Amino acid sequence: MKFFQSSFSPNSRRVRIFLAEKGITIPTELVDLGAKAQFSDAYRAINSRFVVPTLVLDDGTSIGEVLAIWRYLEETHPKFPLLGLTAKDKALVTMWERRAELDGFAAVMEAVRNTLPVLKVRALASPHNYEQIPPLAERSVLRARNFYADLNSRLAEVPFVAGDAFSAADITAVVTVDFARTGINLPIPEEHASLRRWYDTVSARPSAKA
Amino acid sequence: MKFFQSSFSPNSRRVRIFLAEKGITIPTELVDLGAKAQFSDAYRAINSRFVVPTLVLDDGTSIGEVLAIWRYLEETHPKFPLLGLTAKDKALVTMWERRAELDGFAAVMEAVRNTLPVLKVRALASPHNYEQIPPLAERSVLRARNFYADLNSRLAEVPFVAGDAFSAADITAVVTVDFARTGINLPIPEEHASLRRWYDTVSARPSAKA
Repeated sequence: MKFFQSSFSPNSRRVRIFLAEKGITIPTELVDLGAKAQFSDAYRAINSRFVVPTLVLDDGTSIGEVLAIWRYLEETHPKFPLLGLTAKDKALVTMWERRAELDGFAAVMEAVRNTLPVLKVRALASPHNYEQIPPLAERSVLRARNFYADLNSRLAEVPFVAGDAFSAADITAVVTVDFARTGINLPIPEEHASLRRWYDTVSARPSAKA
Repeated sequence: MKFFQSSFSPNSRRVRIFLAEKGITIPTELVDLGAKAQFSDAYRAINSRFVVPTLVLDDGTSIGEVLAIWRYLEETHPKFPLLGLTAKDKALVTMWERRAELDGFAAVMEAVRNTLPVLKVRALASPHNYEQIPPLAERSVLRARNFYADLNSRLAEVPFVAGDAFSAADITAVVTVDFARTGINLPIPEEHASLRRWYDTVSARPSAKA
């Protein structure tokens, strides 16, 4: 296996934390996004959407998309499950992870992509170019604020995003918080005490440094 | 178990086709979206995002989000797998289904939600209200057209979206095509012969009537 990723890519970090939690080490190749290496012929051949990360298996199969890479790693390395163990837990982790992605991660990504001058015609991660829409960036920031408030309410009831145990839902949520802080200057507001308690706990895990 | 859904909801249809392919019958309750039943206290109690569908288990656990409901059904009814059988196939189905959703289904949904007068402040499926953004609706239609072209290229190489076998990726793709036709008047263009061949094949399956 070989893992293609970028240090600055929040989607790559979702996989790096997953690997660290499971104690898996994979040969890694850095894709230099600053040099637009994701648009090179070599990288296009393994990822038709020109995005990191990608996991390439020993038989040459390319797996793109974080959820797909996670699924492969969970199936081949079941120890320390991060996608749930029973049918019910698997469904609940899928649901809460998805909500964190739709309401949180995707909102922050949309805000960044519709704001950064260097991404003027790359407002979406796609093989096609799309122009930025400024009112969309504004709405995205509002969504990210609402995500913080909703997640704070959730974490007032349970220790982790999907319930009693750390899971992939926490990975997406913690990467979202750090991305919002650095990408759109939106740290967790002081008043969200439950969210801050959870963030401190999850950030203290060794995997958070990945 | 009880399945809460709406006949006109494309996300509900993604689950209905999944159930039909597996030959599973579940007691169903219709949620009257026209009467705004998804905002009722009773429905809020099982789905905090006010969206259909929701699967409620016998122990009272509510599972929202199509991917989470699919995961539960696949784990409890493994016969006729739709999310892949081996680790590699599971990853590939996850990847292709996700691309169909991100590039196709989500684009059509975004076009509809940012256009229909009745959804003026419901431009996103969310517990919060968001105003429509007209330039976003225009971009969504362009994305849907690009999705058709890309999927046509893919289906010139393989019989089904994820490869050799029918899977959940085909379900999302076929629901997207029908939704684009009825929701934004965008049928498959004549020139996309491979896409049309695939659509005819998949639509002829008994599950497509679900």
